[in-house]
Amino acid sequence: MPVPTIEWKDNRLRVIDQTLLPHKLKFVDCDSAKMVWGVIKNMRTRGAPALGVAAAFGVYLGVRRSKKSIFRDLDRTIQYLSSSRPTARNLFWSLERMKKTAYAHRGKPVQRIKSVLLEEAKRILEEDRAVCRKIGMLGSRLIGDNDNILTHCNAGGLATGDYGTALGVLFAAHSQGKRIKVYVDETRPLLQGSRLTAWELLREKIDTVLICDNMAASLMAAGKIDKIVVGADRIAKNGDTANKIGTYNLALLAHYHKIPFYVAAPLSTIDVNMKSGEGIPIENRQPDEVRKIGNVYIAPKKVDVFNPAFDVTPNKFVTAFITEAGILRKPFTASIKKAFSI
Amino acid sequence: MPVPTIEWKDNRLRVIDQTLLPHKLKFVDCDSAKMVWGVIKNMRTRGAPALGVAAAFGVYLGVRRSKKSIFRDLDRTIQYLSSSRPTARNLFWSLERMKKTAYAHRGKPVQRIKSVLLEEAKRILEEDRAVCRKIGMLGSRLIGDNDNILTHCNAGGLATGDYGTALGVLFAAHSQGKRIKVYVDETRPLLQGSRLTAWELLREKIDTVLICDNMAASLMAAGKIDKIVVGADRIAKNGDTANKIGTYNLALLAHYHKIPFYVAAPLSTIDVNMKSGEGIPIENRQPDEVRKIGNVYIAPKKVDVFNPAFDVTPNKFVTAFITEAGILRKPFTASIKKAFSI
Repeated sequence: MPVPTIEWKDNRLRVIDQTLLPHKLKFVDCDSAKMVWGVIKNMRTRGAPALGVAAAFGVYLGVRRSKKSIFRDLDRTIQYLSSSRPTARNLFWSLERMKKTAYAHRGKPVQRIKSVLLEEAKRILEEDRAVCRKIGMLGSRLIGDNDNILTHCNAGGLATGDYGTALGVLFAAHSQGKRIKVYVDETRPLLQGSRLTAWELLREKIDTVLICDNMAASLMAAGKIDKIVVGADRIAKNGDTANKIGTYNLALLAHYHKIPFYVAAPLSTIDVNMKSGEGIPIENRQPDEVRKIGNVYIAPKKVDVFNPAFDVTPNKFVTAFITEAGILRKPFTASIKKAFSI
Repeated sequence: MPVPTIEWKDNRLRVIDQTLLPHKLKFVDCDSAKMVWGVIKNMRTRGAPALGVAAAFGVYLGVRRSKKSIFRDLDRTIQYLSSSRPTARNLFWSLERMKKTAYAHRGKPVQRIKSVLLEEAKRILEEDRAVCRKIGMLGSRLIGDNDNILTHCNAGGLATGDYGTALGVLFAAHSQGKRIKVYVDETRPLLQGSRLTAWELLREKIDTVLICDNMAASLMAAGKIDKIVVGADRIAKNGDTANKIGTYNLALLAHYHKIPFYVAAPLSTIDVNMKSGEGIPIENRQPDEVRKIGNVYIAPKKVDVFNPAFDVTPNKFVTAFITEAGILRKPFTASIKKAFSI
């Protein structure tokens, strides 16, 4: 059973409160754009594709009581939701798509525009689910029997409509009967690996080994990692990839140890207006995420902290991108361009 | 004021309970070899040089009530203490030294042997303090004004008699008026960086920035790290270095980013009987250290875990060793040999 990360239910957006996993499976029902902004900001829902879906419903929630002012409300809501988190491309992709949809119906009755927006948000969710399954199916061809695979953060059902990108690849390989072992980086500071990825993999009865982020190099040196598969938050058109902090570290280690490094992501994560990784905005989050774990301080309360949520992996360290349009190989500028023209 | 990590007081070995830092500064008084074994095993006291000191007093405590059986008790105590933790060279170095000292007095009255052993343990402590200051002084020459330095785990006063090895270098540079900024890896799973190193550096009013282990690569790519200084648990005679898990990761990243990577350690950390890093025994610790932080589970309780306490950095990634006998450069087999012959 896939994880019901995000659903439209009883005229509300229902998301899993991912900050409570793996101990509690609890849902939050959002009935306003403000609530959607909050669950994104506080990372109750997270993962680039899931943010795209949540933002789409957020746009609808922001205008569903509008009358004449619907386009002004729409612009404000989009502006507002785009201030929630800066890095994930899918969030902006989704907001742009909702805006375009609304403007394509300019002049139509307000009720019609609202229902078009709700339908579009539902379509974004459904498409994401289908895209993840396609990514899983295509990517599973890269996974061999008895492979030991390392993943970072959570690019699973919890990061998407369901099923996942990087984990989708692993779920598909597992369902084909391939015996895989998955090493999971715990992914400090917010522990998406230990809290979310380990939880998802165990639900599917996949052989899972949790490690601290600093143990990956040691495993690679011992020849215990055959492949690395991660997700992405934003991919520039040359293939430079922003993903959860620690991804660049892994990619460099993989390069040195000659381990294939795959990035699984939908085309909606690719920012074709972004020339290279240098331009990708990197979110810095609050110091207490590093000083504390849960509610407990693990460091002196006043120590300065550097807490970037993402890093950028230069394209040369990526072996291939696994997308719904196929496996994209080097040179990425060409393969990405081609994927978008299909 | 240096941290009173380890002292001989009222006929007991007093150590700081480092598992309670930075929140509580509490001491444990050990009056038996068994208690010393326990504080080492449970990492209430840790750090290779400090383990050497603790083990020396542990030997004395193991025989101080002995009568005729003192040598049998000595051998048993040494055997027992050597089973506490396998990796740190200093522990075994110290046990061997205590044994040699005792056997050199074979035939002498039991009381005399006991007092010789106590004196030897005190000497090991005093020597360690002096050696750390020498390492600090010599190593500080490698540190420039305005340097940004990264360190991992804790190689400070808490890991030694006092003052520290890697942190001794930074304390010395700071006391010379050099303006340094120190980035501290939190060092999962036991967080010696956030709990101990940040605490020590802040006590000395050194500009300190705490990061998660997976953020170091990102800082290096941004040109924000000028030097890396770490301690060591065991150094083979070719310079391969076992140190806290994550050190190899950093060394490889430093190599790629062309950042000098220094290992500060006393000669007692060098195992001249160990040809290369391959032979160094690596301790695997219990899974709950990774599944939990403090008393709180942060992962599914039943997930498998890989939890090596150390990794081995190949000698080629080390720029130089900072020892009390000077800065040792490549080729290390020669420079280490020379250092031991002085």
